[in-house]
Amino acid sequence: MPRVSHILLLALGVCTAALWFVPAPGDLTAEAWHLFLIFALTIGSVIVGALPILVASILALAATVLTGTLAPEVAYSGFSEGFILLIVAAFLVAQGVVKSGLGRRISLLIIRRFGRSTLGLGYSMLVTDLLIAPAFPSNTARSGVLYPIVAALARDSGSRPDAETRGRVGRYLMMNSMAGLSISSALWFTAMAANPVGARVASGMGITIDFGGWLFASIVPCLTAAVVLPLALYRLIPPTVKKTPEAPAAAARALKEMGAMSRHEWITAAVFVGMVVLWALSSTLGLDKTAVAFAGLGVLMVAGVFSVQDMKGQGDALSTLIWFAVLYTLSAQLDEMGFMTFVGEAMAQPMEGLPWQLVYVLLTVAYVVIHYLFVSQTAQMLALFGVFLKVGIDAGVPGGLMAMQLLFATNYNSAITPQGSSANILFASSGYLKSSEMYRVGGLATAINTLIFLVVGTGWMMLTGASG
Amino acid sequence: MPRVSHILLLALGVCTAALWFVPAPGDLTAEAWHLFLIFALTIGSVIVGALPILVASILALAATVLTGTLAPEVAYSGFSEGFILLIVAAFLVAQGVVKSGLGRRISLLIIRRFGRSTLGLGYSMLVTDLLIAPAFPSNTARSGVLYPIVAALARDSGSRPDAETRGRVGRYLMMNSMAGLSISSALWFTAMAANPVGARVASGMGITIDFGGWLFASIVPCLTAAVVLPLALYRLIPPTVKKTPEAPAAAARALKEMGAMSRHEWITAAVFVGMVVLWALSSTLGLDKTAVAFAGLGVLMVAGVFSVQDMKGQGDALSTLIWFAVLYTLSAQLDEMGFMTFVGEAMAQPMEGLPWQLVYVLLTVAYVVIHYLFVSQTAQMLALFGVFLKVGIDAGVPGGLMAMQLLFATNYNSAITPQGSSANILFASSGYLKSSEMYRVGGLATAINTLIFLVVGTGWMMLTGASG
Repeated sequence: MPRVSHILLLALGVCTAALWFVPAPGDLTAEAWHLFLIFALTIGSVIVGALPILVASILALAATVLTGTLAPEVAYSGFSEGFILLIVAAFLVAQGVVKSGLGRRISLLIIRRFGRSTLGLGYSMLVTDLLIAPAFPSNTARSGVLYPIVAALARDSGSRPDAETRGRVGRYLMMNSMAGLSISSALWFTAMAANPVGARVASGMGITIDFGGWLFASIVPCLTAAVVLPLALYRLIPPTVKKTPEAPAAAARALKEMGAMSRHEWITAAVFVGMVVLWALSSTLGLDKTAVAFAGLGVLMVAGVFSVQDMKGQGDALSTLIWFAVLYTLSAQLDEMGFMTFVGEAMAQPMEGLPWQLVYVLLTVAYVVIHYLFVSQTAQMLALFGVFLKVGIDAGVPGGLMAMQLLFATNYNSAITPQGSSANILFASSGYLKSSEMYRVGGLATAINTLIFLVVGTGWMMLTGASG
Repeated sequence: MPRVSHILLLALGVCTAALWFVPAPGDLTAEAWHLFLIFALTIGSVIVGALPILVASILALAATVLTGTLAPEVAYSGFSEGFILLIVAAFLVAQGVVKSGLGRRISLLIIRRFGRSTLGLGYSMLVTDLLIAPAFPSNTARSGVLYPIVAALARDSGSRPDAETRGRVGRYLMMNSMAGLSISSALWFTAMAANPVGARVASGMGITIDFGGWLFASIVPCLTAAVVLPLALYRLIPPTVKKTPEAPAAAARALKEMGAMSRHEWITAAVFVGMVVLWALSSTLGLDKTAVAFAGLGVLMVAGVFSVQDMKGQGDALSTLIWFAVLYTLSAQLDEMGFMTFVGEAMAQPMEGLPWQLVYVLLTVAYVVIHYLFVSQTAQMLALFGVFLKVGIDAGVPGGLMAMQLLFATNYNSAITPQGSSANILFASSGYLKSSEMYRVGGLATAINTLIFLVVGTGWMMLTGASG
């Protein structure tokens, strides 16, 4: 008997096939319309659980090229995007960090200090993220710092990416850090590349946003979210191992057994610290972050910490490259073809004439929900922030308030889909999370974020005039 | 104590560092000169056996970007080249063919017929290649057809890509098919994309080359090479299992045990035949070969022949993508920056005033040897065929003879390095061959090819006037 998901997939397929021959709405080209249908079918088939994200992406790639919707060189272009290759390199470096034993040592140190409960581990990782974030304008690079530690934490808590043990600790910790990045990126002006770019767009409409002003506006909603989110995820995707009162003592014993740091650990530590420093300074020094990651990987391989033999087992890195490159390209091309602006305008249009408070809420919610279509936070900000901000201001929303809320939303909507941010990908590909779980829990986490920022954030900004 | 290869690497590194500050020769830019030094150090470190090709490529990628020799987007561009992604998709499809059992069945059928000796298997694969070649203007796609069969043949002869058993049968068969493609591509006008393009270049100098004329000129040297090469490789890289008189009977028994074709085998057969037909018709139907391969892979994954789980073990496909994309880009950029033309002219210049027979031989040998620098046969043909042909004609070499010899050389030089042709890559990444082995044996195979085409080919063409 066919599974429900397959029936849903069939229904989606039939709808897509029927809509294929409907004329494109508005001024859209047939290519833009077809690309949207392929993209929607791809995401839809993953959401209903009918196809793994990798398989759906491979079929989407073949379909876009064979139907002539995208030229081959355009369809394949995502594979050479620097920030996507950064994810691949960071993925492999993370394996080296784990394999060298350094990941284990760091995780044991964290467990010794915070390991009484899985929730404690979750909070300790989020605090780490919040503290290092201002130095990392690339949240993708930051995910490359956090991921190996979370992976080692999960492993050393007896949770592996397999059916039996992934639920113990790892699934929760991965989701927690992935969703946590949505908060750490919203907290600091310099914690995400899109933030200063958005500020520049806003300044064109007479709204001034700087490091201090941003932090003053963000700190209350962000800290609220940082308190609430790990707890909420704790209920939504509960770790089956919750209390581990004996873990700190066991970690202390294990650390004693590990003894002094090995040669491989020292090398890995030097490489990892070097990468982190260069990533943090990359804008100042004009260094390419991806090349820094490849340099680190190359040194780990020359030193034998991570070998050509170890590469054999890293097919997941290839899977990640394939599905993310494909989805990113489809989304970027949808934007390029004017589809995103079309949808954004269609959503914003009906709001004319409504009271500004309602417009403010509707625009924010629409901006968050539309992120289902985007495979890059920066791309959405560039495509829609200006349009939405203008509609809000025209409807009477205070400009500073509207701008800050939309820029925060650019960050706090990132976990709505696994591909919603390049900073998600390492966690999404960890093996601890299923696609359908990420859609469900990520969607709920985003709803919680939206609620907090709309209620607490708006209240705080209006009370203090924090949004200028 | 340091290994000899490390001392050699150190020496290479010191030379590179010293030459880095020497002004670029001729009209070359500093970037072209630096790129050449990085490329030469990369290839050199692989040839002396100091670094695996993957590690050398990763370091080269980081070095070109961090030194500012190439812009990041240029340095990463190879990752989205369609023909490189075709290799990745074909690699994964091959795993599906093997996993489904279909590869085993085909290989058992071949062993039942030709399996008395390893040499017999080698010849039977080469004959297959020669016969299907005219339908495959992409020798890369053709390698995607042959590779899964050779992989299954090796496996079913008890040879796996590990230290103990790779030498039995697999190492020889992989090298034999890789070098065999250099002959099958030279045999037919339509067996390699560069052949008709080269003919068009030649027609600009008044030399007419068509399907029939090509075959008449090629058939004698190609068949000679097809007889000699498997035997020569049999001595150069001898299989440790040579005679297997009981193999045909064992294969027959195994076939009986396998019984009827399974559902997975039927699906794989349909996908594989479909891909082969679409690849062969791709120019006629205007289909992108890479998209065809991804479509095939997608169908195999939907059908469960090849699963997301199976992808985990396919890190080698990622390694292949990385090293080939990097080396291809470095070589293509060297060409783009005028380095290749510079070297070609520097090699051709001193030949002025020599007797045409000597010029003919020197030009041919130079054209073959310079392929060490190229990571694409077509790129070399486009960069140097015109220059070399003109020098030859100016020196009095009969135009048709010079043109055919250089166009043959474009094909028969392909095995000189593992990356010398995109059609090599599946075999080079099979795990049966070490980089240093491929350089040594591939170099010798290319020398044998060169000798055959210079002596037998030239004799035949001059005797019959086959070159027009």
